[in-house]
Amino acid sequence: MHWLNGKKLQETSAFFDLRDRGLLLGDGVFDTSLVLNGETVFKEHHLERLLASCDFLGLTPDRSALASTIDIAASEVGKGALRVTVTRGSGPRGLLPQPDAKPTILVSTSAGLSEALWQPISAQISTTRKNETSITSQHKCLAYMDAIHALRIAAESGFNDVVFLNTGNHVTCCSTGNLFILSGKTLATPPVSDGVLPGITRMMLLDLAAQVGLTAIETSLTVEHVTAADAVFMSNSLRLISPVELLDNARLSTSGYTKLAELAGQLLERIETRHGMGQLIGNNSAEWLVTT
Amino acid sequence: MHWLNGKKLQETSAFFDLRDRGLLLGDGVFDTSLVLNGETVFKEHHLERLLASCDFLGLTPDRSALASTIDIAASEVGKGALRVTVTRGSGPRGLLPQPDAKPTILVSTSAGLSEALWQPISAQISTTRKNETSITSQHKCLAYMDAIHALRIAAESGFNDVVFLNTGNHVTCCSTGNLFILSGKTLATPPVSDGVLPGITRMMLLDLAAQVGLTAIETSLTVEHVTAADAVFMSNSLRLISPVELLDNARLSTSGYTKLAELAGQLLERIETRHGMGQLIGNNSAEWLVTT
Repeated sequence: MHWLNGKKLQETSAFFDLRDRGLLLGDGVFDTSLVLNGETVFKEHHLERLLASCDFLGLTPDRSALASTIDIAASEVGKGALRVTVTRGSGPRGLLPQPDAKPTILVSTSAGLSEALWQPISAQISTTRKNETSITSQHKCLAYMDAIHALRIAAESGFNDVVFLNTGNHVTCCSTGNLFILSGKTLATPPVSDGVLPGITRMMLLDLAAQVGLTAIETSLTVEHVTAADAVFMSNSLRLISPVELLDNARLSTSGYTKLAELAGQLLERIETRHGMGQLIGNNSAEWLVTT
Repeated sequence: MHWLNGKKLQETSAFFDLRDRGLLLGDGVFDTSLVLNGETVFKEHHLERLLASCDFLGLTPDRSALASTIDIAASEVGKGALRVTVTRGSGPRGLLPQPDAKPTILVSTSAGLSEALWQPISAQISTTRKNETSITSQHKCLAYMDAIHALRIAAESGFNDVVFLNTGNHVTCCSTGNLFILSGKTLATPPVSDGVLPGITRMMLLDLAAQVGLTAIETSLTVEHVTAADAVFMSNSLRLISPVELLDNARLSTSGYTKLAELAGQLLERIETRHGMGQLIGNNSAEWLVTT
């Protein structure tokens, strides 16, 4: 289902201003979240991050209208994925936005959980570097061409995801999620300043680590850190936790999977406590069940 | 005027699939060109570059339909700017494009030449670096958020454009055009591999340099090269040549302006020979007339 500026659409197409700067210049931000039992999981965190990005970029959506559309959309889809897109709206030619630009708000939902939990990743290290000096690396901007292109290249060689390094040779993230390594009792993920998005699931995992006896740190990581780790995984709001099994030609360790499963269990418990038990069970892959 | 997939629209809005990947993920490319006497200036070069980018990115627009829409749009606008946007079209969620995605082709025109020739630039050096490892630096992708943001920041300090360095500290380009320096008998501009778009006007100027006794080279440039040059300018397809007068706090030399005016004269002559004399005169600013 789609809602354009608060209005529910009967189909995926709508009367749309083709001067929209989101379409023409990638001038906008978005957010993707999980919906369970008619509610957005970690809604306040998602909304807060989206609005902080809007503030930073000078986008001025009507906040209560935005929140209200999200609630209605989540309620209608029940269980699935929800995406919110805020663009600068339409304007005349030229890059500098008009101060009175009226943002476009697009909310869309997909019913059902198409993403499986614990879905293994084999990642190619992309030759495209993440640009830690670019705001697009730290805000969820519409600019996904690098990730799309890197993924196309990776798929040609049989990989199902990529890992981006930044310009300082540090590891950053996958195409659609944050990267973590588990080494002994330490859970580590790159700091936002290395050019990564402050993911909501990332935030939850950093917060939950102590509950399974892990010390969580945000620190710059090298490829060597990753290949030497006991477990490596990607986090995002729909897949939650996906183990990275292969990085280029290096098969990564699985020795930390038991501990990782404990951490994942904490995350699932936090979600299920708020949104109803058993909501995610149908998406557990066989491997996930075996591991836990 | 707007043409969506070859169909002329009566207004700027149209029935549009909101799952379009250009809108949601910046998955597309575009081109902007000048129209004089009902024809796109350097049309074959613009079309060739756009289609080469489409090939590279796996976008498959109908080439004859695209060329035909451009011709019709140019003919109808007569004199002005023409923009062609090609997106991946609509698709399901997920970054990896469907192999059978049907591209969206949007052509729009603006009548009249709103951009003045020889419009002086005062540029701030952006803290955002151009990422020379990203395809978006060398293809005219929809991802303009970095330039938009940099321009907003620059405008707050009274600048009207920006200069991006790349991750290797080399000078690349302005927000909407290539950068050139003129030093003695040498005309220099960064190579595409430094993270710049292979601009059509850039190509023409490199080709025309010899006719005014200049040796044209593509070479990596530092800020010191720029501040020591006899003249510095930006080129693009609508403004053609814009002198850069100020870079951060450094007032740049004007000693090469006579030679630069000769080069600009060659460019205007090439355009006017093909598209009719006097077409661009109305857009010459006072300064431009004085200089030439």
